[in-house]
Amino acid sequence: MTPAVVLLSGGLDSATALAAAGRRDGFACHALTVAYGQRHAVELEAASRVARQLGAVEHKVMQLDLRAFGGSALTSDVPVPKGRAEAEMASGIPVTYVPARNTIFLSLALAFAEVRGALDIYVGVNCQDYSGYPDCRPEFIAAFGSLANVATKAGVEGGRYTIHAPLIHLSKADIIKLGVSLGVDYSLTHSCYAPGPEGQACGACDSCVLRRAGFAAAGVADPTRYAS
Amino acid sequence: MTPAVVLLSGGLDSATALAAAGRRDGFACHALTVAYGQRHAVELEAASRVARQLGAVEHKVMQLDLRAFGGSALTSDVPVPKGRAEAEMASGIPVTYVPARNTIFLSLALAFAEVRGALDIYVGVNCQDYSGYPDCRPEFIAAFGSLANVATKAGVEGGRYTIHAPLIHLSKADIIKLGVSLGVDYSLTHSCYAPGPEGQACGACDSCVLRRAGFAAAGVADPTRYAS
Repeated sequence: MTPAVVLLSGGLDSATALAAAGRRDGFACHALTVAYGQRHAVELEAASRVARQLGAVEHKVMQLDLRAFGGSALTSDVPVPKGRAEAEMASGIPVTYVPARNTIFLSLALAFAEVRGALDIYVGVNCQDYSGYPDCRPEFIAAFGSLANVATKAGVEGGRYTIHAPLIHLSKADIIKLGVSLGVDYSLTHSCYAPGPEGQACGACDSCVLRRAGFAAAGVADPTRYAS
Repeated sequence: MTPAVVLLSGGLDSATALAAAGRRDGFACHALTVAYGQRHAVELEAASRVARQLGAVEHKVMQLDLRAFGGSALTSDVPVPKGRAEAEMASGIPVTYVPARNTIFLSLALAFAEVRGALDIYVGVNCQDYSGYPDCRPEFIAAFGSLANVATKAGVEGGRYTIHAPLIHLSKADIIKLGVSLGVDYSLTHSCYAPGPEGQACGACDSCVLRRAGFAAAGVADPTRYAS
């Protein structure tokens, strides 16, 4: 089987990307999770459960504490917004944007891919729900692919990297439908930006709002236990 | 003063790049060192000394252990080559190549720059001595600059990043002459890939060979104490 590296956060999107890479596209999946200073270990535990459920051949966790830079509600003490409607989320770059996060994550995935002899990298970015994140757009994915081919030994020696973003144009509902068709167990995933002390989803942050609305629109029972 | 981020390893090249950014080009320099699993703490100590000597306004050290991936003589137990002539070094990509290292480093520099409001990033790559490293070439630097502008909030909002590689076309001797003209104290820097237990330069690895030859060609006294 051909190897691929899959960025896996433990959320709904990256779980679906992993299923697309392995179960749909037939790659041997080397999952990579970056522990970047998330507020709660619950995301890392979710990533581990998802990697196991979906048959990743390997799951590597890299420690990289982006709280050293700060600059985001996810890496500093800036509060995570709660109770925003979807239209409001789409109106600009939210405070949950982490500077250059996906560039950093794809760079680490590229290193891992080169060491494992993989030329395929999967990332679960999505530009429908969040128009606001610059590093979730097709032009970003294309630019990273171009960079990968000039940045690496494999590229210089004639290998051509493909950065797969299978969810990039899908709605949250379509992502969930795709995942269900591939057997993703969404009860293992975690999306909330501001979970409670035992990892419960808050139900009110942007990520919870989009997740809940996605399950409703997909007509799929939402396995998440929301605090509100 | 306008801020810039400067990648600083503690070696000869990055010390010169820091001097070019601060003393020649007039930026307020935010130095960034990535502790990526180097075999010896001596490189980090050198980076700290150099940042102080050259007046960086800030020096951040990020921990990122690339030994988790391996794939290089600098991040695994593969021996560092010794006693190679310069012609031999130029004949291919050496085992000291670290997969995607400069992509990762520039990604971290980009995040740091975005948080600090800087649009200028300096990196001391050089394509003359080592034709072998893919991520030391002008096409890599150009591709990263293009990526930065689509990857970030600052780029989307109209900022234009400049990735400065002031040494990229210089010989080692010309780098040393530039640094001397800017007051770099090279006795504080460290280049050796395989230092002794007290940090002494081995004198035989590729990096020592190039450093020693560079000082000789520049006609500058080499302050390094080599073990052989």
